[in-house]
Amino acid sequence: MCRVTGQDSARPLVAPEARTLLGVLRSAGPLTRAQLAERTGLARTTLTARLETLVADGLVVSAGGAASRGGRPPGLLAFRADARLLLGIDLGATHAVVGLTDLAGTVRDTRAERLAVADGPQAVLARVSELARELVESSGRPWGDVVGAGVGLPGPVEHSTGRPVRPPIMPGWDGFDVPALLRDALGVSLVLVDNDVNLLALGEHTSAWSTTDDLLFVKVATGIGAGIVAGGRLQRGAQGSAGDLGHVRVPFTRDAPPHGDADDDLEALASGPAVARALRAQGVNAADADDVVELALREEPAAVQALRQAGRDLGAVLATVVNLLNPGVIVVGGTLARAGEHLLAGVRETVYGRSTALATRDLTIVPATSGETGGVLGAAVMVSQHLLDGPAED
Amino acid sequence: MCRVTGQDSARPLVAPEARTLLGVLRSAGPLTRAQLAERTGLARTTLTARLETLVADGLVVSAGGAASRGGRPPGLLAFRADARLLLGIDLGATHAVVGLTDLAGTVRDTRAERLAVADGPQAVLARVSELARELVESSGRPWGDVVGAGVGLPGPVEHSTGRPVRPPIMPGWDGFDVPALLRDALGVSLVLVDNDVNLLALGEHTSAWSTTDDLLFVKVATGIGAGIVAGGRLQRGAQGSAGDLGHVRVPFTRDAPPHGDADDDLEALASGPAVARALRAQGVNAADADDVVELALREEPAAVQALRQAGRDLGAVLATVVNLLNPGVIVVGGTLARAGEHLLAGVRETVYGRSTALATRDLTIVPATSGETGGVLGAAVMVSQHLLDGPAED
Repeated sequence: MCRVTGQDSARPLVAPEARTLLGVLRSAGPLTRAQLAERTGLARTTLTARLETLVADGLVVSAGGAASRGGRPPGLLAFRADARLLLGIDLGATHAVVGLTDLAGTVRDTRAERLAVADGPQAVLARVSELARELVESSGRPWGDVVGAGVGLPGPVEHSTGRPVRPPIMPGWDGFDVPALLRDALGVSLVLVDNDVNLLALGEHTSAWSTTDDLLFVKVATGIGAGIVAGGRLQRGAQGSAGDLGHVRVPFTRDAPPHGDADDDLEALASGPAVARALRAQGVNAADADDVVELALREEPAAVQALRQAGRDLGAVLATVVNLLNPGVIVVGGTLARAGEHLLAGVRETVYGRSTALATRDLTIVPATSGETGGVLGAAVMVSQHLLDGPAED
Repeated sequence: MCRVTGQDSARPLVAPEARTLLGVLRSAGPLTRAQLAERTGLARTTLTARLETLVADGLVVSAGGAASRGGRPPGLLAFRADARLLLGIDLGATHAVVGLTDLAGTVRDTRAERLAVADGPQAVLARVSELARELVESSGRPWGDVVGAGVGLPGPVEHSTGRPVRPPIMPGWDGFDVPALLRDALGVSLVLVDNDVNLLALGEHTSAWSTTDDLLFVKVATGIGAGIVAGGRLQRGAQGSAGDLGHVRVPFTRDAPPHGDADDDLEALASGPAVARALRAQGVNAADADDVVELALREEPAAVQALRQAGRDLGAVLATVVNLLNPGVIVVGGTLARAGEHLLAGVRETVYGRSTALATRDLTIVPATSGETGGVLGAAVMVSQHLLDGPAED
């Protein structure tokens, strides 16, 4: 995994040598000094010094007394997620959601509005920064408490620099230094940027599937992309472009011949615009993915059938992915997944029909649960992991 | 990742609390006590106690004096990989290789012979155990030094139990308790079993690509399978069946229509038997993959063309995998990869033509380097990681 350098000019919130200690407190809840010494094996003097720093920074607080076996009750120490704040910024093709969270990624407040990413980075990031300022101001907390911002963009991002790389639906963004602009605009030293689908996968994994080590999140909206959690960790690949499902070819079979052009990629067959286009070709009035969803929720037969077919095409690709990665769960999100079970029914039909028995034995295919704030949550979790666990590198 | 329980009845070679300490010595070479205290943050008494156990077990030894700044030179401590031995067992459809390695996976000696896995587990594992005994006896080391065995099988394996799961080319092996038989036959308490391609990926990653975090190993032989290293770690998926590429459908395009049956999977088009069959259909005398390789090495045009086409079909699937996983390197091994560059040329033609620019920018597609002992190395590395780093779980 890549070393994040260009995105981070901050002094660490947690000194590297104190991360393990804080990690024990984060995962195992309030503990006494004796329990901490036992679990970390740290020398008493080392433990005391590290705890003093964490307490001085407000990250660790006294959490009342533990049950005592006589004598003075030993004091409990706890991680305080609310000690600092994070900004999570989720940009889609036509929307922006900005959220304020604590260090655990718990969303405290959000602002959402329609905003075209095609307006370019200057205009979009200026508006997003205004929304962020509104959020912090209305929280009553000082700006100094905001220690990082995470951003999800609807296109490929070079994770080490936070710059978009030839994003198809983001004119003007190619190579743009998103972290630098936001560091200036927000006065926050740590800004991390990633593909929005990676962050949706991270958010969904954290909030709903934290005990499942192998998860695939598929977003079906203007584009089609996937976020991969394997072995419990988000996988970005060598250049950070992992999860690009939109531009793969769909394998057809004799009983399911191509219904589009034989050279179409998945996005040309199963994305929101593709399904709307297919409906218009049948004389149905559908301008975009939102119209498709509305028609399907009214059980309009052509829309139901088109979504089911989009699900089958998606499933033809996911059957390969299931054999390859053997995920425990596939979570389907994005605009088209909001149209009820039709899309998922098509996905299941093809995946269960074509993947191997072992790979689908315990496979669950479900709609996303995290809703509108899923991207914000994922962006905050990315920053939180960077601050508390250290930069991803191994 | 799954907790390995059924396969391991051993007391740990390294106590869990001493793993980090030993890990520092393994990765950072000989160090003084002062350096170890500094790097681990351990209390002096804790450090001394843990070192005493490791020294008593022979895993850590004195490695001479460090450069002194006056006074008595501080003693250096080092990990001794040779303290114990491991057995690596690599079973293919028609061969067996058994190797004796040290704790670092360095292969000291091997025995190889033709052996049909279809003869069933009792016969095959009995013969393999004989070969293992020969190796240990000729090493002059006591049997007690052998602390674990790793086994690679040519089919899906449930990693948590070490049992094959409906392996297509291994009649009689379905659900067979391979670890139990080998624990008895070899008198070794730790036996871990995995799919052979996973172990080839692990071996190749360890020996040739240890600084590349995202690697795909593809084996093209009697079957076709992949081993996935993502984020620096072997990924087995939820049931341990990750990497099954042989049974996925091949996506074709208008300029590359299916040359087989439209419902053929990759194995039916590009495996060793499939290529031999295609050649026989043209009147070329090719019984199996070995014949194909021999013909191709003599530059027989039909064989060269058939291998190139197999490479294109494999590439059509790998193009999807590259977009999905964005590996830094694809290593191609197995019988058909021994036939020179023809197979790889076909793979490259399709992958570079169809995958996205970002995913192929720095992608390397190379033949495997580890040769006949690659599977043995990988099997030993699996066991070594289990013994020294602890069971895979996170």
